[in-house]
Amino acid sequence: MKNIKIILAGPRGRMGKEAVDLIHNTEHFQLVACLDRVNEGKLLSEVEGFPNIDAPIYYDPRTCFQEVEADVLIDLTTPEIGKINTKLAVEYGIRPVVGTTGFNEEELKELKDLAASKKVGVIIAPNFAVGAILMMKFAQMAAKHFQDVEIMELHHDRKLDAPSGTAIKTAELISKTREPKRQGHPEEEETIQGARGAETKDGIRIHSVRLPGLVAHQEVMFGGEGQSLTIRHDSYNRASFMSGVKLSVETIMNLEELVYGLENIIE
Amino acid sequence: MKNIKIILAGPRGRMGKEAVDLIHNTEHFQLVACLDRVNEGKLLSEVEGFPNIDAPIYYDPRTCFQEVEADVLIDLTTPEIGKINTKLAVEYGIRPVVGTTGFNEEELKELKDLAASKKVGVIIAPNFAVGAILMMKFAQMAAKHFQDVEIMELHHDRKLDAPSGTAIKTAELISKTREPKRQGHPEEEETIQGARGAETKDGIRIHSVRLPGLVAHQEVMFGGEGQSLTIRHDSYNRASFMSGVKLSVETIMNLEELVYGLENIIE
Amino acid sequence: MKNIKIILAGPRGRMGKEAVDLIHNTEHFQLVACLDRVNEGKLLSEVEGFPNIDAPIYYDPRTCFQEVEADVLIDLTTPEIGKINTKLAVEYGIRPVVGTTGFNEEELKELKDLAASKKVGVIIAPNFAVGAILMMKFAQMAAKHFQDVEIMELHHDRKLDAPSGTAIKTAELISKTREPKRQGHPEEEETIQGARGAETKDGIRIHSVRLPGLVAHQEVMFGGEGQSLTIRHDSYNRASFMSGVKLSVETIMNLEELVYGLENIIE
Amino acid sequence: MKNIKIILAGPRGRMGKEAVDLIHNTEHFQLVACLDRVNEGKLLSEVEGFPNIDAPIYYDPRTCFQEVEADVLIDLTTPEIGKINTKLAVEYGIRPVVGTTGFNEEELKELKDLAASKKVGVIIAPNFAVGAILMMKFAQMAAKHFQDVEIMELHHDRKLDAPSGTAIKTAELISKTREPKRQGHPEEEETIQGARGAETKDGIRIHSVRLPGLVAHQEVMFGGEGQSLTIRHDSYNRASFMSGVKLSVETIMNLEELVYGLENIIE
Repeated sequence: MKNIKIILAGPRGRMGKEAVDLIHNTEHFQLVACLDRVNEGKLLSEVEGFPNIDAPIYYDPRTCFQEVEADVLIDLTTPEIGKINTKLAVEYGIRPVVGTTGFNEEELKELKDLAASKKVGVIIAPNFAVGAILMMKFAQMAAKHFQDVEIMELHHDRKLDAPSGTAIKTAELISKTREPKRQGHPEEEETIQGARGAETKDGIRIHSVRLPGLVAHQEVMFGGEGQSLTIRHDSYNRASFMSGVKLSVETIMNLEELVYGLENIIE
Repeated sequence: MKNIKIILAGPRGRMGKEAVDLIHNTEHFQLVACLDRVNEGKLLSEVEGFPNIDAPIYYDPRTCFQEVEADVLIDLTTPEIGKINTKLAVEYGIRPVVGTTGFNEEELKELKDLAASKKVGVIIAPNFAVGAILMMKFAQMAAKHFQDVEIMELHHDRKLDAPSGTAIKTAELISKTREPKRQGHPEEEETIQGARGAETKDGIRIHSVRLPGLVAHQEVMFGGEGQSLTIRHDSYNRASFMSGVKLSVETIMNLEELVYGLENIIE
Repeated sequence: MKNIKIILAGPRGRMGKEAVDLIHNTEHFQLVACLDRVNEGKLLSEVEGFPNIDAPIYYDPRTCFQEVEADVLIDLTTPEIGKINTKLAVEYGIRPVVGTTGFNEEELKELKDLAASKKVGVIIAPNFAVGAILMMKFAQMAAKHFQDVEIMELHHDRKLDAPSGTAIKTAELISKTREPKRQGHPEEEETIQGARGAETKDGIRIHSVRLPGLVAHQEVMFGGEGQSLTIRHDSYNRASFMSGVKLSVETIMNLEELVYGLENIIE
Repeated sequence: MKNIKIILAGPRGRMGKEAVDLIHNTEHFQLVACLDRVNEGKLLSEVEGFPNIDAPIYYDPRTCFQEVEADVLIDLTTPEIGKINTKLAVEYGIRPVVGTTGFNEEELKELKDLAASKKVGVIIAPNFAVGAILMMKFAQMAAKHFQDVEIMELHHDRKLDAPSGTAIKTAELISKTREPKRQGHPEEEETIQGARGAETKDGIRIHSVRLPGLVAHQEVMFGGEGQSLTIRHDSYNRASFMSGVKLSVETIMNLEELVYGLENIIE
């Protein structure tokens, strides 16, 4: 496979560090430059804590995109900076793989048009964990055959919101193939309030467990006569996101348009 | 081991049939008579659907206890009949193993005194599944070491009450060894009501899943720094109760008092 | 939906009884006749243990197919009888849904040609549990993204063969989308032989658990950087097969050829 | 609670760093000195990557134990150094909590005698994860009631040995309360060798799963008529060991002898 030349924006963040390792350890990936607010003019190999890669660090994306020949931009910065980098990259013919979610609908539309006119692939992914994407996809498929489904999501106890974003997204996807239905016994009664979990407007139940020690886990359980089917994703650490970054970089080389959501490039 | 001679009350019920099989298949158990409202005077072997055991069927418990030499009465009838049989058995020196839960506190006290004065063992057990009893026992022990715990109980969707009785009992037992604590992030927010489940007054969360196909399952999950400990019981059918009946019959031979709850004879 | 008129072959078997209940409880299904070796000339409602359905019982399939107007034959008999019934049904323009697996390749080929020439749908399914079929399908899809996979199948301890047929079938399907790979550490060592399970020729590991109490369960677990994805099917009793029978009956009304394996009609 | 003054040997190792955090974050724990091969004479606060604790670093244990008033030594060094530190600490009346496993039987005997004569508590623990210890303890208890048990242990695919040490230890503990038994169907057959896992000499089956992404997980599953009981421990990261270190430090203050294995101080 031909080498893919990559510019990485945000190498010092937690995700950024994982991405440096990913590029470093993937034979056909080559890190050709970094975008960062600090260390301008240095090589990445000169910054403590990074592997021995001679990629120059740029502060200004325009200068970087002009001077460096690259195929792909991986952007793991903030929503604000990510938007600027992404648009600029497309203009320079560099395909952006973007992990931030700061685009509103209008901005997405504009970027989509730009990508189409320039015939430059763009991938924007709120969730890069391939396993989580597959879990959602399978859940949507299974809902064609099983009307009754409950979602259990389990996270560490420092999480603020319940249910998790992934659980809500999963329920939305399931609702695309499942008829709305009130589940459980029609006369069931909660002797302690909340026992039966959260109920989405289509009647899907979601249960949120919060315990110290846990990381990020979700189980989608379907029940039918005499059987149950369970799809479970466990995320043990941040490295789980790199599977999706890798897939995106490989896929984007053959894209000439914008794709939003990893589920649209995973078969 | 010496044979244990058993009278069975209620052989035609679902539990009763399992008990006939249990006695039939246990080498040192011997069925010496049955108590039943119908088929008086017949042998069990003459009733359709039963194995070839020559145990006479009695209608009147007093006659039965006078005429038949027996060690143990297994009573799987109704609360009303069970109470009468139990008391009478103790008076005749036959040790009752009782699966019904119709005794109020006064009746229990009276029976306890009677058993003590006659030095006749009595075992009354609302739940005969040894695995469920062990789950509760282990949960209570683990709570000494892990303050954070959530209970997930999963049942078929014809169940009316949520949480299940076993889940509530488990939470009560855990509360005996765990300091009351509000779990989760202090500022956590339910974006859909009920997501975080039912909360007992001591701060234990219980989640009730109801799906067709499921039978009766419970998971008690403890979380601590970097780890979780989970104790799970799955009940697949009624036969699960027979393990506790067997243990009770064997244990009662060395008892001279009343014991309420299988957890008190299981080490 | 228009009523589907069904002839059931083998109503007294375990699967047959479930099928009677299925037809009885499905509004647009109608039982119009039964094929059975006994009770010829009676109505099903006259046979003990069956619901009040006035379906005549036939001994001879040819007479039955001539006299009764039907859309579908559900055949839950033996391989020998099933083959005869199936072929005959096709000739009479009645679509057979067949749960037996006695056809050899030549017989299948012949039946396929007959079905095509008559434009009559035929569905032959070795496994009717929709959840199990979906588990296999999802596993095959996930294997495109995760190279490392192990299968754990858990059954009651009266099962003779290990691994189970479903586990072997699952591994075969996974091998269609996964490159052969030796898994685990290249220098891993079994200090007790067998610890790492069975290894298929493509390097997939299968572990067979046998315990009393269990029914039929399988877990397919994929691992990747920082994450795992698990697909699990639990079969609690025979009723699980009826989901696939129902789906087959509904699907076959629009089929004009033979389909082997439920996976080919499930999207 | 009175402050417990602690000397930590091996602060720069992975476990050591966790221990520094543990002591730092536990109100009644106080780090009074460190033993380390480097940084002699510095304060821990002067070494990069450590919190602001003014604990002096010693190279020589004897000097350290003479100059520093301490209650407990936590030793997270190597087996060789650990042995020397432990013996010396006892002589100076400092109670050692030791995570290394380098002692042979003779050395253990000698240390036991020394501890008893000095009336100084010693805790040596090959595994400090409280959840894992409880899992083993519960498994041993459950085996009194369920004869049939299989162990599944799941680890990352860089692990060399199968089964894991914890799985083997668990099987040994179970064998103390379970009669030896050959499990599964007497005539069961492996159509692919290894399917039924490793078999201990007492007939317990162990299955070792190895997948990238996983950390360290074990499930002990008991089966009986109509039910199963499962005890599972998940270790997500090294912090899981600190629960046991903390418990040991608190317990050792009231010990006057040597205890080997955390299971002996956990009720």
